[in-house]
Amino acid sequence: VKVKIVSVGTEILLGNIVNTNAAYLAKQCANLGLSCYEQITVGDNEERLQETIQQGLETADIIILTGGLGPTKDDITKEVAAKVMKYPLKLDEESKENIINYFNLIGKPITENNWKQAMLPEPSHILKNENGTAPGVIMEKNGKYVVLLPGPPEELSVMFEKQVIPFFKSISEEIIYSHMVKICGHGESKVDEEITDLLENQTNPTIAPYAKSGEVHLRVTSKAKNEEEAETLMQPMLLKLKERFGDSIYTMEEHITLEESIVTLIKKNKLSISTVESCTGGLLAARLINVSGVSSVYQLGHITYSEEAKIKAVGVKKETIDTFGVVSEEVAKEMAIGEAKFSNTKIAVSVTGLAGPNGGTKEKPVGLVYIACYICGNVYVKRFIFPGNRIKIRNNAVSSALVFLREKLLQYSK
Amino acid sequence: VKVKIVSVGTEILLGNIVNTNAAYLAKQCANLGLSCYEQITVGDNEERLQETIQQGLETADIIILTGGLGPTKDDITKEVAAKVMKYPLKLDEESKENIINYFNLIGKPITENNWKQAMLPEPSHILKNENGTAPGVIMEKNGKYVVLLPGPPEELSVMFEKQVIPFFKSISEEIIYSHMVKICGHGESKVDEEITDLLENQTNPTIAPYAKSGEVHLRVTSKAKNEEEAETLMQPMLLKLKERFGDSIYTMEEHITLEESIVTLIKKNKLSISTVESCTGGLLAARLINVSGVSSVYQLGHITYSEEAKIKAVGVKKETIDTFGVVSEEVAKEMAIGEAKFSNTKIAVSVTGLAGPNGGTKEKPVGLVYIACYICGNVYVKRFIFPGNRIKIRNNAVSSALVFLREKLLQYSK
Repeated sequence: VKVKIVSVGTEILLGNIVNTNAAYLAKQCANLGLSCYEQITVGDNEERLQETIQQGLETADIIILTGGLGPTKDDITKEVAAKVMKYPLKLDEESKENIINYFNLIGKPITENNWKQAMLPEPSHILKNENGTAPGVIMEKNGKYVVLLPGPPEELSVMFEKQVIPFFKSISEEIIYSHMVKICGHGESKVDEEITDLLENQTNPTIAPYAKSGEVHLRVTSKAKNEEEAETLMQPMLLKLKERFGDSIYTMEEHITLEESIVTLIKKNKLSISTVESCTGGLLAARLINVSGVSSVYQLGHITYSEEAKIKAVGVKKETIDTFGVVSEEVAKEMAIGEAKFSNTKIAVSVTGLAGPNGGTKEKPVGLVYIACYICGNVYVKRFIFPGNRIKIRNNAVSSALVFLREKLLQYSK
Repeated sequence: VKVKIVSVGTEILLGNIVNTNAAYLAKQCANLGLSCYEQITVGDNEERLQETIQQGLETADIIILTGGLGPTKDDITKEVAAKVMKYPLKLDEESKENIINYFNLIGKPITENNWKQAMLPEPSHILKNENGTAPGVIMEKNGKYVVLLPGPPEELSVMFEKQVIPFFKSISEEIIYSHMVKICGHGESKVDEEITDLLENQTNPTIAPYAKSGEVHLRVTSKAKNEEEAETLMQPMLLKLKERFGDSIYTMEEHITLEESIVTLIKKNKLSISTVESCTGGLLAARLINVSGVSSVYQLGHITYSEEAKIKAVGVKKETIDTFGVVSEEVAKEMAIGEAKFSNTKIAVSVTGLAGPNGGTKEKPVGLVYIACYICGNVYVKRFIFPGNRIKIRNNAVSSALVFLREKLLQYSK
């Protein structure tokens, strides 16, 4: 089953928004064993859109279109798709009802153009929108499917998972099954060198590396008739990877994130954690708080952006700052120790660094970051120099802090 | 001048990474007056890639390819593009030198496969990579250009801005000039209704709405021979928008963000700000700290994820929590007042809410968030219910906090 993903919207074509939907849909299709052979983005342009749908119907079995289902005049996806399929638009009473309920919930008035969203092609399978007002649509003709989904990612994903997946599962013959072996603390080329032989001799399962900030993920995929057979096929490969990367593998599950695996480790060791951040300004705490249920181990954290804040909030000594500078091993250590003391946690992670663009010197260039990790009376500190701009430096500092924390946690639990 | 953007990489095609490069490049091209008519994503597959480049050469003047310039065996973009253009690959001494310098800087050993990145097509214009090891390439044949850029966004953007833009400017005839009118605090359909007449009667300039979290951006674009002429053309439209949206417009400049405009307002009023966050867990502080130079107004902030943290760090009364619940107007107020007191700032913003997925009740559902804003002795609080999942709720809470803060700041400065 071949899938073509079409993202509709001048705002995507002109780059005003990033196309996260294509990635989301491609991933979901891959998991379902539907092979995405092309992603394409076109503007809100009737002619180009019509052409794209028609071409898609020739080569693909399923065309998934996202975007352009909104209330404004720009939004023409549904109208054009229905025209290509030669299905008329009719008012759908249930969708009308849902629009009324949605506006009641958010307490805003309904504007006239919202009713356009209740006009739907007939015949079609209508997909309810839990997070917004635009319903989705699945149309079928001669064994080909055209799926229309709303553009806002949170509307799309809920609709896809609850309503489109059950539909897709029913039309896929073979399953594609995969594990994501997630490795932290190694660069992409280092990982690649370690698995050259595996990459060269791959058949079923296959293996594919993806670089992330501070991580490399290896997707191990096998094709089979069912999950059990697929799992058996890929076991030898997973074993080899475990032998080669050992503790650097933090999970083999797609949905588990680095922060989640760390929170699990903290819980397992019955510890608690706090954070104190300078240049990362809350991003490290926010990563940990991404994890639902973190509240049992994370209670309190500080953002100490200035020198005075570091002194006042977590008791860094003025003398230490004056002697070693605010971006230093010593200050990072005192921040972590002070945070653990104040927050009464077994672990505290601190970050102090220069994210730039200004303020760098020859000895302390932009990109210099110290990360300290206090665990049960011991404090470890590591120096980093991250290349790149303010955003890249801050994101890399957060990833590296998580990798460093995990390393120290593993040592502690041994 | 027509541009086709080709993103290469099985990891994008399968959805393992989000394609931010296509958005970035499309935006840059639009600003340069180069019209992007299609974005396409293909896997690291020789045949598909070759076909895509050949097709592109028929319809586009410039094909920009990103990704697949890395050191691993998967990376074949340069090899395939050079083959299509019929230009051989040769070792480039300067690129070899840069690879050596880069690895020296980051203090990691060079692996054998890194040398592949110094093999470049001849003739070509080589683009130096400041943030990584893969050089970029511009090839020309019969007036058509093939541009190869590295996949990592921070490598791509620096290379594009410093080296590709000057090149593109030299081949563009007409300029496309635009202002981004950024409106906060109104929904997309509300803004759309306000400008229906303008949308219907647009010629030059044109106007296009884009919805963001908590914001709507209107891109006003005019085509002209030069910037001055373009600016004159669009003035009447900008005036109309100012009349209709007034203070809700926070900027008309593309590069200015909401957080930046707020930091500017705080500086202008000689105020200072601190934050105290529960469910958003540092994301609000991180948004403010995105702004380079924020240190003169932002020094300190707290993440008070638990009840005890709220009591201990910012002096929320236990009684208040027991009486009204931790997600309440009263607690939000006490958090903001306590934070301002502790951090000694004129402004403090607090967020307390239920991001879910668990913990909701009928009276206090998941998505309920209180945001308080303390300014110079007064404290304002607002109740929100955000639909969606944990991520959406947290992001919307941050956007709404910024919009609310700006509103109160504007009232204060009047």
